Amino acid sequence: MPEFDFIKAAYGLPHDRIPIWIMRQAGRYLPEYRAVREKVSFMELCHSAELMAEVTKQPIDIFGFDAAILFSDILLPLEPLGIKVSYDNGGPALTPQVRTPDDVAHLKTYEPADEMAYVLAGIKEIKKRLDGIVPLIGFCGSPFTLASYMVEGGGSSRFAEIKKFIYNHPKAAHRLLGQLAEQTGRYLKDQINAGVDVVQLFDSWGGILPLDAYEEFSLRYIKMAFEICKTEGVPRILYLNNTAPYLKQLAELDCEVIGVDWRTDLNDAMNILSGKTIQGNLDPQLLFGPGKLVHEKTLELLETVAGKDNFIFNLGHGIQPEALVDNVKLVVETVHSFNIKRDQ
Amino acid sequence: MPEFDFIKAAYGLPHDRIPIWIMRQAGRYLPEYRAVREKVSFMELCHSAELMAEVTKQPIDIFGFDAAILFSDILLPLEPLGIKVSYDNGGPALTPQVRTPDDVAHLKTYEPADEMAYVLAGIKEIKKRLDGIVPLIGFCGSPFTLASYMVEGGGSSRFAEIKKFIYNHPKAAHRLLGQLAEQTGRYLKDQINAGVDVVQLFDSWGGILPLDAYEEFSLRYIKMAFEICKTEGVPRILYLNNTAPYLKQLAELDCEVIGVDWRTDLNDAMNILSGKTIQGNLDPQLLFGPGKLVHEKTLELLETVAGKDNFIFNLGHGIQPEALVDNVKLVVETVHSFNIKRDQ
Repeated sequence: MPEFDFIKAAYGLPHDRIPIWIMRQAGRYLPEYRAVREKVSFMELCHSAELMAEVTKQPIDIFGFDAAILFSDILLPLEPLGIKVSYDNGGPALTPQVRTPDDVAHLKTYEPADEMAYVLAGIKEIKKRLDGIVPLIGFCGSPFTLASYMVEGGGSSRFAEIKKFIYNHPKAAHRLLGQLAEQTGRYLKDQINAGVDVVQLFDSWGGILPLDAYEEFSLRYIKMAFEICKTEGVPRILYLNNTAPYLKQLAELDCEVIGVDWRTDLNDAMNILSGKTIQGNLDPQLLFGPGKLVHEKTLELLETVAGKDNFIFNLGHGIQPEALVDNVKLVVETVHSFNIKRDQ
Repeated sequence: MPEFDFIKAAYGLPHDRIPIWIMRQAGRYLPEYRAVREKVSFMELCHSAELMAEVTKQPIDIFGFDAAILFSDILLPLEPLGIKVSYDNGGPALTPQVRTPDDVAHLKTYEPADEMAYVLAGIKEIKKRLDGIVPLIGFCGSPFTLASYMVEGGGSSRFAEIKKFIYNHPKAAHRLLGQLAEQTGRYLKDQINAGVDVVQLFDSWGGILPLDAYEEFSLRYIKMAFEICKTEGVPRILYLNNTAPYLKQLAELDCEVIGVDWRTDLNDAMNILSGKTIQGNLDPQLLFGPGKLVHEKTLELLETVAGKDNFIFNLGHGIQPEALVDNVKLVVETVHSFNIKRDQ
């Protein structure tokens, strides 16, 4: 029997209180995080085991979340492929862009255990500092999401280039995605070997695809990565932004938890994904609003999942810089006291 | 019995071939449209009845679409409220932004028939030029979509400001949305009086809202607008980008057609929205790809709706500038010849 309620919930096992964590919980909304970032750049932070451990632990100490998540970035594993990633001007910028079969053929291959050793060292330091109080979540971007960044050269509002690429060069797209799936799976496995207790894949951009293309270009490679890192006692979470259209397809995926976005009907998710644990899905932008509303909407969400052992509370997407710290405290308190109520 | 297959399909009545049109069919992907735009600005085009008629008719002549859509812009009806709209630098920019209850109180009210008279004159000219060959679709932005533009001051990737506004100032938000719903409904009614045969509301941004907020801040005001413009023999279409999460809620809406995006399962839409006509939903970015794939995916979509009288073929979103004209031709040919096959 696992020790943490978080791990029990991930396997749908009986436990005492609904666990809660928040995507991007160590982030710019938090004054303590911003204080660290005033001293070092984002890249310096991602390369220092000491600082990674410090910011990873901050939200645990401040809010009492039930899980910590490795402080890192989904784009870092692209650097050993020969892609330069810069965070200097707002969003990330990647060079060179990968847009032709030839570009794909020229990517390097690498051993995650070697090239990502600085992240694995960070994991060991974080585990030491957490000292067993909460489980640690490791993560990676989904192959399709990483490919989108590589092809677009950064974030995008239209994703025109990745669509041109998969429709016009499907063979090269499959070659790229296959390579990313293998490296992603092995990187997650290395994170598990270094000590993480849970892994999450972020499919941030899969939700732009038609259903058949989602199956062909995203889900297929998530399956490959999850197959490679499958480990007894280590639950695998897939978070997909814009989840609702793909629920039936996700039901087929071999993993323990599906993270759903804030537009997904929780009852639908529970029904269609029966046998899996659901993670989500408060609107992150609700945390810009008044406490009364935050409390009310958190309670409404909790009523939907009352008495269910297969639920992990989270936002429906990463927390945003404008989120009010008091609202985060309120959500955690509401979730934790609701659990006590359930036991009465 | 209506004359056009398009109108018959909108009411789910028996007809001979599946009608097709494409959102933004008079647009930058089309060389003939770009030739007009080389001579005049976007605003000049929107204010000239002659030119509106010319570009509205272009895609009918070139591709043989089964409906024309008024050439105009969803933001124009915001100008008489006291909002300046500029299209000079890529996306639209709106000033002043509306972000407080006070900003809402200071908006002007107006008679669409007076202030939008130049659009109504355009409709009359278009109808004359179309000479009864195809029906004409009029349109407007949904109240929530218009409010989003007003609050954000343009397009957005995060929609943080409109979320702050509805969560922190719900009363002012409802006042703004109520005013927009009434003006939108009356504007559509005026378009019908000027001669349009169909009306479509574009809810481009409602799909960022949680389900309960969609009901409260978007759908409720779409209902009001559709109630006001309800006219015997004139079908009402709601297009909602990111349709899948909201299908059950849309089933309650009093309108004839729901336009669904490219990520929506057509069978789900047909089942959940039974009694309504479905419009959609080929991935617009598929038109960047090779003809063979376009043909194949168009046929797959058609097989899904074979034999159904309640379907109108469209893309799942507006056509984009990079779309290949030959692919548009191919889609129209494929749709029109599929219909003949169905009758064999």
